[in-house]
Amino acid sequence: MLTPSLLLSRHQKLIKAIEASGLEAVALNPGPSLTYLTGLHFHTSERPVVLLFAPGKRPALVLPELETRKVDAPLFELEVFPYGENPLDWVKAFTGAAHAVGLPGARVGVEARRMRVLELHYLEEAAAGTRFIPAEETFAALRMYKDEAEAEIMRRAADVAQKALITTLPLVKLGMTEQDLAGELVIQLLRQGSSPTIPFSPIVSFGPNSANPHASPTSRKLVEGDLLLFDWGAGVDDYFSDITRTFAVGEVEPEYAKIAQIVMEANEAGRAAGKPGVPCSAVDKAAREVIVQAGYGPYFTHRTGHGLGMEGHEEPYMRGDNEQLLEPGMVYTVEPGIYLPNRAGVRIEDDVMVTETGAESFTDLPRELIRII
Amino acid sequence: MLTPSLLLSRHQKLIKAIEASGLEAVALNPGPSLTYLTGLHFHTSERPVVLLFAPGKRPALVLPELETRKVDAPLFELEVFPYGENPLDWVKAFTGAAHAVGLPGARVGVEARRMRVLELHYLEEAAAGTRFIPAEETFAALRMYKDEAEAEIMRRAADVAQKALITTLPLVKLGMTEQDLAGELVIQLLRQGSSPTIPFSPIVSFGPNSANPHASPTSRKLVEGDLLLFDWGAGVDDYFSDITRTFAVGEVEPEYAKIAQIVMEANEAGRAAGKPGVPCSAVDKAAREVIVQAGYGPYFTHRTGHGLGMEGHEEPYMRGDNEQLLEPGMVYTVEPGIYLPNRAGVRIEDDVMVTETGAESFTDLPRELIRII
Repeated sequence: MLTPSLLLSRHQKLIKAIEASGLEAVALNPGPSLTYLTGLHFHTSERPVVLLFAPGKRPALVLPELETRKVDAPLFELEVFPYGENPLDWVKAFTGAAHAVGLPGARVGVEARRMRVLELHYLEEAAAGTRFIPAEETFAALRMYKDEAEAEIMRRAADVAQKALITTLPLVKLGMTEQDLAGELVIQLLRQGSSPTIPFSPIVSFGPNSANPHASPTSRKLVEGDLLLFDWGAGVDDYFSDITRTFAVGEVEPEYAKIAQIVMEANEAGRAAGKPGVPCSAVDKAAREVIVQAGYGPYFTHRTGHGLGMEGHEEPYMRGDNEQLLEPGMVYTVEPGIYLPNRAGVRIEDDVMVTETGAESFTDLPRELIRII
Repeated sequence: MLTPSLLLSRHQKLIKAIEASGLEAVALNPGPSLTYLTGLHFHTSERPVVLLFAPGKRPALVLPELETRKVDAPLFELEVFPYGENPLDWVKAFTGAAHAVGLPGARVGVEARRMRVLELHYLEEAAAGTRFIPAEETFAALRMYKDEAEAEIMRRAADVAQKALITTLPLVKLGMTEQDLAGELVIQLLRQGSSPTIPFSPIVSFGPNSANPHASPTSRKLVEGDLLLFDWGAGVDDYFSDITRTFAVGEVEPEYAKIAQIVMEANEAGRAAGKPGVPCSAVDKAAREVIVQAGYGPYFTHRTGHGLGMEGHEEPYMRGDNEQLLEPGMVYTVEPGIYLPNRAGVRIEDDVMVTETGAESFTDLPRELIRII
């Protein structure tokens, strides 16, 4: 539960981060960083919403008039600049906010993955001479360290997702389509208590489609001999889980059982590698080494994992070239895979948090290749 | 069903639109316009995906290597520029694509509401001297006119949403929370055949929360005397529906019944106003006039509607100041409301398409204030 004192402490950390990175302010769009810092929820639409935050000033929020009810009782001091329906008037609200926090001429950090050309142009028009600088790492650095309250929410998000898979498995039948089964999984996620905002539409892929790591569910029907891959997550109180498990449908080719065993060992090695002080690359290398040694290196075509929290993908990334050191409170996925083109793929994904001494897995569904039909 | 010839005809329209607007190319991010023009589905993530399209050149697609399976069999000629996991290498893929379509120095249209600072910076680095110009209207003009195949999909999206509400209503009980009921509505949407990608998380608001047009479901419990407002939609084959209905829970204040009647008449007037050749403003004015005449003008705090299609909100907008003329094939919402602060609100929303002679409503659920408990 967000409290005024928790928000204040987050604001103080943000101020330190702004100063440390040579910025004078930040501008935030709707998204997890804005929610993390304000407790407010807005969505991205054709009507821009921007929070301007500068040390020593009251934060200023530009928003459509019809959203002002959301800021009737903010948990922190806030100045509000609403605008009406006519886009020609919007720049006035931006100008008011920009001047209230002393924006013109400043170096302003933005989230390059959130800030759109739409908001950028309004800000540029409202605050001449301002420089807008990608500053993902400033926000990432705040949100990357989960406190115990956040960890507890994320354990619940993992639990909801796991229960949803357990209640989905009995519904699997030969002849079902990937799309049907994906729909059932979403229904079970909601029944188990996921918020309607899930991190992504579940990937449910059968047979050759499982060899595509980013498959979208199709009308392909389930047949004997398929591998069946689920990649899904739940949303709980603005935080996400993200899990993958792979199952055998009837008798499968011996090589499929073999790669499933290798991926399981790679997943275990990746999870075991996480602890304070080792680089992210070590997690990737530990998992990848198992697959390379088994001769399947070219078939593991992506990084081993990504940070997880209020975003489905966030810092830190488990890439072989990422020398960032792990610290307690970081949460990330470990998700090695082997993909045999046009035949089948296996991926096994868990969510882990770095502790004082190692890494805790939030997820514990069986990882062996279980035959479900 | 998308076919090569349908895509080709869309590409030809795009080329005309590019030339008519004085542009030399367009750059598209994942989203409905990219899907409309390619049949491909990508999601927005930390890995940029950009389609570059210039008249007389093969379209060029920059994308992560692990998404390349999606373009194994494109429905049109396409040049692909994949990149690996290390962001330092990404600019190379952008540079290859930018030069392939002759980007450097060109005037390039972008969707300001889709293009992020992330893609903008890569494109600027890859193509020196290029000017990136907001060109929403170029893409909007393509997607605004629905052909009969699109209209048929949108009728299905309306039908799925309506059936989902009908199967949700029997589940409404006193003491339920807004969040619980919103979850049930999503489950029913999926059961009725909605794709997991719905246009927005349903708004379910009780009592005073219904006076907030953009409420998010809370833990407020349903009690007698509440108005109960549902604002929800389904997704079918990349197209959306968007409906609002308001119900009475037990005996409600007489003024609530009165505003419900006024809003119903405003909705009817708004729907009746739509036909080829009249401006969007006429739809807004027709609905608004009913509410103003009844003395509730200040309590109708938003525009009357928005375009609908592959986006939940798109062109054309039913605003009092929008003199754009309606033409056959345009689809939009008519959604007047009256909001009594801290007491209750009523909104009634339908999806209509302009025909040769008037406007067809895709939605036909009863609009009277029905008492459901």
